Amino acid sequence: MSWTLEPAMLPDLARGAALLGTGGGGDPYTGRLMVEAAMAEHRPVTVLSPDELDDGDFVISTAMMGAPTVMVEKIPKGDEAVRALRALERHLGRRADATIPMECGGINSMIPLAVAAATGLPVIDGDGMGRAFPELQMETFGVYGVRASPMVVAGDHDESVLIDCGSDNARVEWLARGCCIRMGGAALIAEYPMSGADVKRTAIPGTLSLALALGRTLREARDSRVDPVEALAAALEGTLYRHVRRLFEGKVVDVERRTVDGFTRGRIRIAAFHGPSVLEIAVQNENLVARRDDRVVAVVPDLICVLEADSGEPITSETLRYGQRVRVIGISTPDLMRTPEALAVFGPRCFGLETPFTPLEEILPQGG
Amino acid sequence: MSWTLEPAMLPDLARGAALLGTGGGGDPYTGRLMVEAAMAEHRPVTVLSPDELDDGDFVISTAMMGAPTVMVEKIPKGDEAVRALRALERHLGRRADATIPMECGGINSMIPLAVAAATGLPVIDGDGMGRAFPELQMETFGVYGVRASPMVVAGDHDESVLIDCGSDNARVEWLARGCCIRMGGAALIAEYPMSGADVKRTAIPGTLSLALALGRTLREARDSRVDPVEALAAALEGTLYRHVRRLFEGKVVDVERRTVDGFTRGRIRIAAFHGPSVLEIAVQNENLVARRDDRVVAVVPDLICVLEADSGEPITSETLRYGQRVRVIGISTPDLMRTPEALAVFGPRCFGLETPFTPLEEILPQGG
Repeated sequence: MSWTLEPAMLPDLARGAALLGTGGGGDPYTGRLMVEAAMAEHRPVTVLSPDELDDGDFVISTAMMGAPTVMVEKIPKGDEAVRALRALERHLGRRADATIPMECGGINSMIPLAVAAATGLPVIDGDGMGRAFPELQMETFGVYGVRASPMVVAGDHDESVLIDCGSDNARVEWLARGCCIRMGGAALIAEYPMSGADVKRTAIPGTLSLALALGRTLREARDSRVDPVEALAAALEGTLYRHVRRLFEGKVVDVERRTVDGFTRGRIRIAAFHGPSVLEIAVQNENLVARRDDRVVAVVPDLICVLEADSGEPITSETLRYGQRVRVIGISTPDLMRTPEALAVFGPRCFGLETPFTPLEEILPQGG
Repeated sequence: MSWTLEPAMLPDLARGAALLGTGGGGDPYTGRLMVEAAMAEHRPVTVLSPDELDDGDFVISTAMMGAPTVMVEKIPKGDEAVRALRALERHLGRRADATIPMECGGINSMIPLAVAAATGLPVIDGDGMGRAFPELQMETFGVYGVRASPMVVAGDHDESVLIDCGSDNARVEWLARGCCIRMGGAALIAEYPMSGADVKRTAIPGTLSLALALGRTLREARDSRVDPVEALAAALEGTLYRHVRRLFEGKVVDVERRTVDGFTRGRIRIAAFHGPSVLEIAVQNENLVARRDDRVVAVVPDLICVLEADSGEPITSETLRYGQRVRVIGISTPDLMRTPEALAVFGPRCFGLETPFTPLEEILPQGG
């Protein structure tokens, strides 16, 4: 069922997207401002569920790429994403019928909405990551056979780069990242041109609605002083994200964070409020693995989310700092993201981790 | 007057192009093999002088880009330059009527010939550098108003990247270099799509014939034991390259050479056979400035060429090594490359040199 996304919904969507960003994806704040401006100038956005697409419809994913540490400082000029979309349309000789987020986490929950508001295209309620991942080949679209390219990278000097690597989506990432770095570390992209049938087959459905619902849940929990983790667990019941686990509570005691090769990389240490226990999180844009006293408690592609302890507000990796009091939770990813094909593209080994993937609910069988 | 370039002419052309490459442009050897193979499989190449073009003809420059240290080792797959040309033609919706070298020095004297042999297009007797330069914006085409982009970079994984930076040719270089580095440090390109009128207005004319003539001159001088510098001076009389100067003779005593940021950078020291005199040459792919006992004796865009002392064979920067006995000569560039507009794009300051440009014939007024 299609619905209209209004400006008043954006704060909840941003909060939910920051949660699903699992530390990365970039702070949705600047993206939200872009959507508000685009909606004010043009129109609100129509959201379609994937099953409302015709199989023959033509859909292009739009997004921002870059290191979150850069994205939080380097504000887009404004027209880059639409320019990227239009350049890809011209190259392919076909206008898009809709745009779809590549990732539902972070700023990329917002970029397709800004594109939709500016162009009048509907946005699809779904995405290609079911969370945020640092690299362009790490999308369910590609896992299940859609080509990332031809794709376009657009920068804030009115320049555009069209990349075509045939079926080699990892090479698209490699070349696009090189361009992105030379564009200053962040750029806007249009990628994974695909059919409506492809979207239905490969997207994680309903993630835009889900981000909105989770953002609302966290806000209401805060306002009514309900435990945010219990509220999230209730909200996620019956969704594709079935399991929520408390991983840790404590104070951030060390943040090692570098912007290197176009990514934000680092390591976060959190000390328990009471006792000697320590949680360590390894980061490549997103939180990749959480180790409690050297034992893995959650690992990619399951979600590792850091919440501000009192308010339950999600904290993204580039804004983590010493002294913050936080709760860390794990959320299981959808089954479509745990298949052998999916783990071959965004499982722990793809990030250089030795840890094999073990589902969150097997590592920590007890709920809550 | 159009003429046919036959395989038998290629060794002389390669020798002359190595000379005009002024140390850079890549060793023409692998390029020559590519042209020989393309001619054997397809046809010899028709060479047109710029004034044989109609003003409305459509010309695309084809070339290899990369660090010479890489180009000498990383042999192209073979179809990249034609793929780049075809991708640019498709993007612009027009087939090329001819191809033109971007530089007449080094391997890029050969790449357009391989393209011409494979496609049947004629090649224009002229180029955009009148020598070799390390960066794509350093072309007379761009100095006099032709846009480098849209342009295509093609790699050996069947991938292609189309870059469009409007009128900002330096940004084309910046982004294309980033792609080239990620393609392994060398790639094939199609760039500066332009009209026949543009070619007539902006190209250095006759440089393919000139390279061929200079290569023949050096061979004949060697075979008849004539002094190669005197022979070159005679061959250049009446051309756009009017002045030849002996800069130094001696033994290479130090070669500092790194492949960094996609370029070959370094510094060469040559000690006189007799006495304490030393010549030092700074290199960014090409020889940029020659200082004899700390006094500048030649500076970019004038040509600084290193010849093997006995045979007169040109030595490119990536093959220079300790112990080689060499003659170093300077050759003045055409006037079109010494205007204020030209020096703003490829004068000494563009390479970070403090030295202002002084014409070779003013630094060393006496001939020979």
